[in-house]
Amino acid sequence: MNPDTLTKIVKIGRKVDPIIFKTLAQASSSTFQSPVTYHFKTGGKRMRATLVLIACAACGGRIEDGMNPAALVEMIHNYSLVMDDLIDRGLVRRGKPTVRVKFGDSVALLIAMLYREALDDLIEKCISPNKTRAVAVQAMKDIIEGERLDIMFEQAGREDPYLKAHRTLNPSFALYIEMIGKKTAALFKAASQIGAYSGRANLRIIRSLGEFGWNAGLAFQIMDDVLDICGEETGKQIGKDIVEHKLGNAVILTALRYLPRPKKSEILTTLRSEKVSRAMLMRARQLVMETPAEKDCREIAGKYLLEAKAHLSVLGKSVYRDGLATLSEAIVSRTF
Amino acid sequence: MNPDTLTKIVKIGRKVDPIIFKTLAQASSSTFQSPVTYHFKTGGKRMRATLVLIACAACGGRIEDGMNPAALVEMIHNYSLVMDDLIDRGLVRRGKPTVRVKFGDSVALLIAMLYREALDDLIEKCISPNKTRAVAVQAMKDIIEGERLDIMFEQAGREDPYLKAHRTLNPSFALYIEMIGKKTAALFKAASQIGAYSGRANLRIIRSLGEFGWNAGLAFQIMDDVLDICGEETGKQIGKDIVEHKLGNAVILTALRYLPRPKKSEILTTLRSEKVSRAMLMRARQLVMETPAEKDCREIAGKYLLEAKAHLSVLGKSVYRDGLATLSEAIVSRTF
Repeated sequence: MNPDTLTKIVKIGRKVDPIIFKTLAQASSSTFQSPVTYHFKTGGKRMRATLVLIACAACGGRIEDGMNPAALVEMIHNYSLVMDDLIDRGLVRRGKPTVRVKFGDSVALLIAMLYREALDDLIEKCISPNKTRAVAVQAMKDIIEGERLDIMFEQAGREDPYLKAHRTLNPSFALYIEMIGKKTAALFKAASQIGAYSGRANLRIIRSLGEFGWNAGLAFQIMDDVLDICGEETGKQIGKDIVEHKLGNAVILTALRYLPRPKKSEILTTLRSEKVSRAMLMRARQLVMETPAEKDCREIAGKYLLEAKAHLSVLGKSVYRDGLATLSEAIVSRTF
Repeated sequence: MNPDTLTKIVKIGRKVDPIIFKTLAQASSSTFQSPVTYHFKTGGKRMRATLVLIACAACGGRIEDGMNPAALVEMIHNYSLVMDDLIDRGLVRRGKPTVRVKFGDSVALLIAMLYREALDDLIEKCISPNKTRAVAVQAMKDIIEGERLDIMFEQAGREDPYLKAHRTLNPSFALYIEMIGKKTAALFKAASQIGAYSGRANLRIIRSLGEFGWNAGLAFQIMDDVLDICGEETGKQIGKDIVEHKLGNAVILTALRYLPRPKKSEILTTLRSEKVSRAMLMRARQLVMETPAEKDCREIAGKYLLEAKAHLSVLGKSVYRDGLATLSEAIVSRTF
């Protein structure tokens, strides 16, 4: 697929915005419109909406039939982002103040709760509301559980009594995969399946597209972890995961397996410090970069991406099937 | 209805607890059970569950058919309570530490989000899932809007930029009724209607029971306001609404209409003080008590209660119809 086609794909996702704004207007009082819509006006790539739309088309469905489902998945994603910023006390997202900073924690919480009710209205407008709801609700349960596992991977920095008593001190890579599966891959899986429902796909195709989304989601999150520690591409603060005490990062976890005990302890001490200084961060990064962890993780992400694309073989040949492959590559490589 | 029958009614509501615990167990991972179930183990009268069950029976339904719907309404209520404690930074509820105090804000937020997904599983098990969902989702939208109006009635005490810029400085009694209608009465209305659905009632009865619940809910909230300022019956901290800067209290609003300008200003100054001292609280209470506001509000609550009971006339005579009347009286008078 040439870059022009990719540009078109990117723009498709944005077509759900009018649906989202209309849904929010109907679900909330007129005086609350400006705070309720703010988050969606700060940007966002609508990556998951694009996934739903292309999956729908790849199953032989009409793009129009995928619009409400795509808006739904995007609403779920943004519901989780506003809540995530409350949990992480996030200040900036998409280069703008987070909802909680702009309006306050209490108001942000009410806005996120409203997204949860508004998305139910979108489910009613999907082609298979019952199946779509089952997948959407399961994805939201998974996101909640993934978020719980994620904050339990943190080694310091929160006052929550539950977390202090139940931190995950020595996680396996398998537990890490479980965490990112729920936190991130579950919604990619749901997006692909909901797209397939809108395209009236058969059960075999729905399952395969679910596997496609799941594996692409894992690859995406692992690359997100790689870029957090090793990258400069995203323009985000480098080593944010280290500053936020997160042991739930693929590169850190992999590096710890390579490093001799004293260096391993040094990284863990940094993660367990209430305040991680710039010097501590740079030293921890340097220790991680001494190992082949980045290369390993890029390879693991590559394998998940290959696995994802292999599941597309159940689909008939079409520009949209190729589009799904291109989209998954673009998502994982961050060229989307 | 004699006191024995009332005791039986009270105990009926508690029968939903096993359903709630089973639903939560199925919706969350085994290691999260203890935090997830804590809130329901701290007590609660299951007043709204009782309302669903008696409404179901009064429409000719079987109590068994009302069980999942009753558990659903109780789950909605408790979802809103955990969120409310996050918004109000609540420390104690039902004489026990709130979920946020016990486990931390982040974990409490995840628990509340999980309640929202778990209650969707309960909707699927109701007799009319689609109608029940429509009523339940509308009630949750109303609760969110009611909570927003409620915190906008506060005159100080929050850092949220949105609230600081949009406080309701001079509310009418009509706006107050709109606020408590959404915050409180909407769920009483939904409980009555969902009970009627489970009893397979016709549209006329469903509508009347909705009116019954709505009016009983308004009466309940107005009496809640009366007891906050004037009462000692509930064992709660007296004048909590004044300490929390809430102008959205029926008695305070009514008193302000009676008081001469200097005394009115004094109360407003107290509500607008960042820290309300014991002396300021007692003085504001005394000023309110000088007026007939308590008497007025008890009369208004009484009128809503009468209106509620009048709507029961569409039902055939039965011990359950009488039960609904008794229940509404007990709820409003706090003898439940």
